[in-house]
Amino acid sequence: MEAGKTYLSHYKFEVPEIVFGRGLLSRVGLCARRLGGRKVLLVTDPGVRRAGWADVAIRSLKRADLEVVCFDDVTENPKDVEVARGAEEYRRQGADVIVGLGGGSPMDAAKGIAILAANGGRIQDYEGSDRIHRPLPPIVLCPTTCGTGSDVSQFAIINDTERRCKMTIMSRTVAPDISLTDPDTLRTLPEEYVCSTAFDALSHAVEAFFSVAATSLTDVHAIRAVRLLSASLVPAVRERKDGDLENLARASLHAGMAFSNALLGIVHALAHPIGGLYGVGHGSINAVLLPQVIRYNLSAVTEKLPELAWGLGHRSEGDAFRASEIVQEQVDLLIDRSGAPRSLRRLGVREEDLSLVAQRAVEDTCILTAPREAGPEELQEILVRAF
Amino acid sequence: MEAGKTYLSHYKFEVPEIVFGRGLLSRVGLCARRLGGRKVLLVTDPGVRRAGWADVAIRSLKRADLEVVCFDDVTENPKDVEVARGAEEYRRQGADVIVGLGGGSPMDAAKGIAILAANGGRIQDYEGSDRIHRPLPPIVLCPTTCGTGSDVSQFAIINDTERRCKMTIMSRTVAPDISLTDPDTLRTLPEEYVCSTAFDALSHAVEAFFSVAATSLTDVHAIRAVRLLSASLVPAVRERKDGDLENLARASLHAGMAFSNALLGIVHALAHPIGGLYGVGHGSINAVLLPQVIRYNLSAVTEKLPELAWGLGHRSEGDAFRASEIVQEQVDLLIDRSGAPRSLRRLGVREEDLSLVAQRAVEDTCILTAPREAGPEELQEILVRAF
Repeated sequence: MEAGKTYLSHYKFEVPEIVFGRGLLSRVGLCARRLGGRKVLLVTDPGVRRAGWADVAIRSLKRADLEVVCFDDVTENPKDVEVARGAEEYRRQGADVIVGLGGGSPMDAAKGIAILAANGGRIQDYEGSDRIHRPLPPIVLCPTTCGTGSDVSQFAIINDTERRCKMTIMSRTVAPDISLTDPDTLRTLPEEYVCSTAFDALSHAVEAFFSVAATSLTDVHAIRAVRLLSASLVPAVRERKDGDLENLARASLHAGMAFSNALLGIVHALAHPIGGLYGVGHGSINAVLLPQVIRYNLSAVTEKLPELAWGLGHRSEGDAFRASEIVQEQVDLLIDRSGAPRSLRRLGVREEDLSLVAQRAVEDTCILTAPREAGPEELQEILVRAF
Repeated sequence: MEAGKTYLSHYKFEVPEIVFGRGLLSRVGLCARRLGGRKVLLVTDPGVRRAGWADVAIRSLKRADLEVVCFDDVTENPKDVEVARGAEEYRRQGADVIVGLGGGSPMDAAKGIAILAANGGRIQDYEGSDRIHRPLPPIVLCPTTCGTGSDVSQFAIINDTERRCKMTIMSRTVAPDISLTDPDTLRTLPEEYVCSTAFDALSHAVEAFFSVAATSLTDVHAIRAVRLLSASLVPAVRERKDGDLENLARASLHAGMAFSNALLGIVHALAHPIGGLYGVGHGSINAVLLPQVIRYNLSAVTEKLPELAWGLGHRSEGDAFRASEIVQEQVDLLIDRSGAPRSLRRLGVREEDLSLVAQRAVEDTCILTAPREAGPEELQEILVRAF
């Protein structure tokens, strides 16, 4: 809780321009227009289209005198081949600005398309850190789930269909020019996605808070995300009131701002290979892994636990031991009360793949900022506990 | 303290790229170069130059293969005529990037110079909101005090020497491309400036937190600034330890991020005309006004008081009445223990000018976001109490 605690001695903090408000998707045209575009490639997916949000965006873009081409050939855990097709469409149509609308999948696909449109080649060429050399076209991202954070982050996660793995692309250039959140879009999100994407946001917040790259600027957003989720996750899943859904949208934004700058940790290092192997929803995997990873990290983050306990709703001062109990209890309670999955087995993960997952996780960028070191053995132990 | 509290239904949040760390002024050349510049106008003041920081910056800029012209003809409460001379120098020298180094005065002067360099005319032409139409040259701002927030804000405050008033220029375009804070620069800041600029930061944080335009994204930064100041202001003034000075630099950044997006209130609406009339240091005026304005606002911000009390170091839950007592006590204590001035009279303000100050404050942009309405009479009453 000390204001004087030690952080990284040198750091950077970057977030795109943020626009937030109910009903604002109907103003996305003004955003795209302000970026100087004339012809928009709208990247979305069939679910978002069916829910009517693509039409809201298209109407707004046209009202702003922009031409629009809609590309909705994107699936959950977006694929290299989809990105390649989108980039081809962007070029063929002569588009000059990209709007991504949806969950993490269409938004990450939009980023991948922007990379290929400006830099050519295959998306595999950009895997890793800072491998993009030419500036991307202007991008507006509009999230319609409560978890991804892609709309503010410097990351894009794309599936390599041949290797069956997730590629992490990290570059300041993939952060959009404008992040536009319209919490009304959460009204049509199926219940299971409200829950799973909210746990994605909670994992972003907790991992960013525990990250060795955390700073004063990221901690405030991480803790606010935890507070909002702690208050609104369960009622949002159960009752779907607008106020709670809006809090989840806000939490997603705060968590995104935190992890885009503080990076992540073991939950995500493990979730990426699992997602790559099984195509399971990213948020559900995180919900299963988070309690085990928190337990593993406890000894390395002792002095930060009281603030996290406070974020989770505990209101009196306590020592680190009491705080560690509260953190575990509260996270467990959120999972139980929201009905999130509790085991990898239930998600379809096979026991014989656990060691492959652990091996791949060691190579994942996210492991670098974990507060406690973890090799293949420790990671496998975490997986076994979560199995 | 409730996570579910109601904020503005629509809002925007923008901050520049932030770089923070001890010793980083010696890397400012890389920042300026990254923005595509070749010839830098370095805007600073004689005090910063004497302290050796201008030389650190110049060496770094030259190491990055940039030409440098130094313009240090800037005084406290920077003047229209200084801005005009700087813009003339920028043009004459064929500069293409601006680095502002110093307190609020050189940084605001740098913004004014950038406005004139790109848009021509007189700085008076840009007074008010959103009156700048052509994009500014790239700007890097490096604060060397712990208060102004100019390095992240969408404001520039320039003195009109004829009218003897401060002009507020508000535009997203005056936020720099990069804000670079090197807390080491605070080591040479005279004690009185450590104190007065820290109270400027405290005023930014409290006013942004109470502002009607406050959002979840600004509140987290406002409260973190209050926490850091509450812990480190007095020891930084008295003992000048590096850790405390660094906390003040961090607090200034958080407070700047908050007020640039949530705007300010009565303290600043009153401080601007006083600064315009007397040329007194802005931070000292704020220190005198803050307790009186907090008192005036209390009834309008009841539900936010417990969180502010928490930020000021109070660690148990209480009702709003108790919180209002704590907020007042803690702010008074900070002023007393740091030796900040307690009366406008001591700053040289004349009693017969108070009604003129109140009249001018009604016209100041900052009054628009005050949580409680205040006309000339109420403002004069606040001034009399602070006199």
